[in-house]
Amino acid sequence: MSAGVGAEGPIVVDWGSSNFRAYRFDAGGALTETHQAAAGILSVKDGAFEAALYREIGNWISAGRQLYLSGMITSRNGWVETPYAEAPARLADLAAQAVRRGGSRGEKLYFLPGVCARAPLPDVMRGEEIQVFGTVGPQQSATVVLPGTHSKWVQVEKGAITGFRTFLTGEVYALLKAHSIVGRLIPEGAAPFDEAAFLAGVAQAQDSRSAGLLNDAFTTRSGALLGNFPPAEIADRLSGMLIGHEIREGLTLGPISGALYLVGEESLCGKYRLALEASGQEAVLGSGHAAVEGFRRLSALPETAA
Amino acid sequence: MSAGVGAEGPIVVDWGSSNFRAYRFDAGGALTETHQAAAGILSVKDGAFEAALYREIGNWISAGRQLYLSGMITSRNGWVETPYAEAPARLADLAAQAVRRGGSRGEKLYFLPGVCARAPLPDVMRGEEIQVFGTVGPQQSATVVLPGTHSKWVQVEKGAITGFRTFLTGEVYALLKAHSIVGRLIPEGAAPFDEAAFLAGVAQAQDSRSAGLLNDAFTTRSGALLGNFPPAEIADRLSGMLIGHEIREGLTLGPISGALYLVGEESLCGKYRLALEASGQEAVLGSGHAAVEGFRRLSALPETAA
Repeated sequence: MSAGVGAEGPIVVDWGSSNFRAYRFDAGGALTETHQAAAGILSVKDGAFEAALYREIGNWISAGRQLYLSGMITSRNGWVETPYAEAPARLADLAAQAVRRGGSRGEKLYFLPGVCARAPLPDVMRGEEIQVFGTVGPQQSATVVLPGTHSKWVQVEKGAITGFRTFLTGEVYALLKAHSIVGRLIPEGAAPFDEAAFLAGVAQAQDSRSAGLLNDAFTTRSGALLGNFPPAEIADRLSGMLIGHEIREGLTLGPISGALYLVGEESLCGKYRLALEASGQEAVLGSGHAAVEGFRRLSALPETAA
Repeated sequence: MSAGVGAEGPIVVDWGSSNFRAYRFDAGGALTETHQAAAGILSVKDGAFEAALYREIGNWISAGRQLYLSGMITSRNGWVETPYAEAPARLADLAAQAVRRGGSRGEKLYFLPGVCARAPLPDVMRGEEIQVFGTVGPQQSATVVLPGTHSKWVQVEKGAITGFRTFLTGEVYALLKAHSIVGRLIPEGAAPFDEAAFLAGVAQAQDSRSAGLLNDAFTTRSGALLGNFPPAEIADRLSGMLIGHEIREGLTLGPISGALYLVGEESLCGKYRLALEASGQEAVLGSGHAAVEGFRRLSALPETAA
């Protein structure tokens, strides 16, 4: 039996607004047990986070155990607000810069920091960095794109996050669709994904006739009013156009060194891959378990497993 | 006494969603009387628009009188939906392409069209064209910018609207401020305009470090989180940044021939002038009465006054 197999390793808790997810590792870095519950920080009253932790995984916890906590539990509305680790930041920097607290049962709590970049423009992340480190190995270089409400383009050089930018793409799409004049012509009810309409939006964002996002977004209405396309195409055209602008902006940030990974919700990553390919950029779909793998790597670091 | 002085000319009704405004001209094109009421089309029940018209200005109306109707009264939710006049469009084209109806008292109703552009990208306007024709004379060339919820950049060549683009600037600002993560750090309550913060936003939109609007908007949050500026600056920085992007986009549409006029609400036009000057583009504040002047010119056309 090799050293550490069977011995207890760290516990990692990914504690978000809505969900509580915990991962138990052995000293060799293997995942031995998981626990998930709808026990996010918004469901915890009066700051009773320790009681909630014991309720969920109290039977895992004993004196001396290391627990790493990540997610909204480390935000202003969580248990312990942590600062940001400054880019360039490696996985080991997150562990080293964690805010430490002793627990009532003698366990050691480590609240993980987020990551910030101060140049060329200020940016912050809190949670996505774990998915990045679960995707790109400690000596690898790559660009990781995490599509979503606040989409992130992250540059990794030899295992360190060296810079990143956040794009409001998903949030702007949701707001324009639900609340703006552009959304008013969209037919009620769910519609299947219209790939051609989506790619038409991507193409417009990259066309020389585009005067930018603020005008392009309006043309998804005016084009329908003038009969260029049916109103049923507006939503996917708008989606393609916004993602097209994000990609146009993202690709100006610098050359892609290594692979460009897409990490996140599968169908959204598929749309980004389509749009990237239409922009001449190959993309690799990352694992759907990037966060778990990131936590596994964190738990296996010499300083955390020690 | 010159011909027509004292004789009745056309009536123009600017009938919007919330307001009813009517202008009475003599045959010489002089404004002789105005009437305004909070009697917009949303206040008219069961399509009883004719009764509402007579209630407001029935004493102006007699057999043979010409009435030009403009605004939301010509939209799908109004009295008569009119098509769009295609660019290039002159003021006389609006009159010529009006949809004609006979009124119950023998008056002649002309429902004015909007204006559309089919190239390079589809665009539409309904109402702003009157302000444009009230600003730029029938032989003049100019660019007219009408800041607002749906800001418009209109090219006029020798009195004809030859092309235009609509930018969602005002609507995106309102949505991001009220509903997005960017707005969450903005302190409650009204604050005086912070010109330096506004110009910092304009500058960022035009800086080479900008990766575009979707990222720039997020930096108004991350910059505050990282202490680059206080949360009280977020709103004016965001405003400057969005207007800066609109201007950056608008100035790519082609060379400004003649003056660049700003037409619309005075304080907003003032902000646009600041931002344009910071972009090296001189701007002229247009008249606050551009719409009335546009209607006066319409009423004075040979074919309307005839």
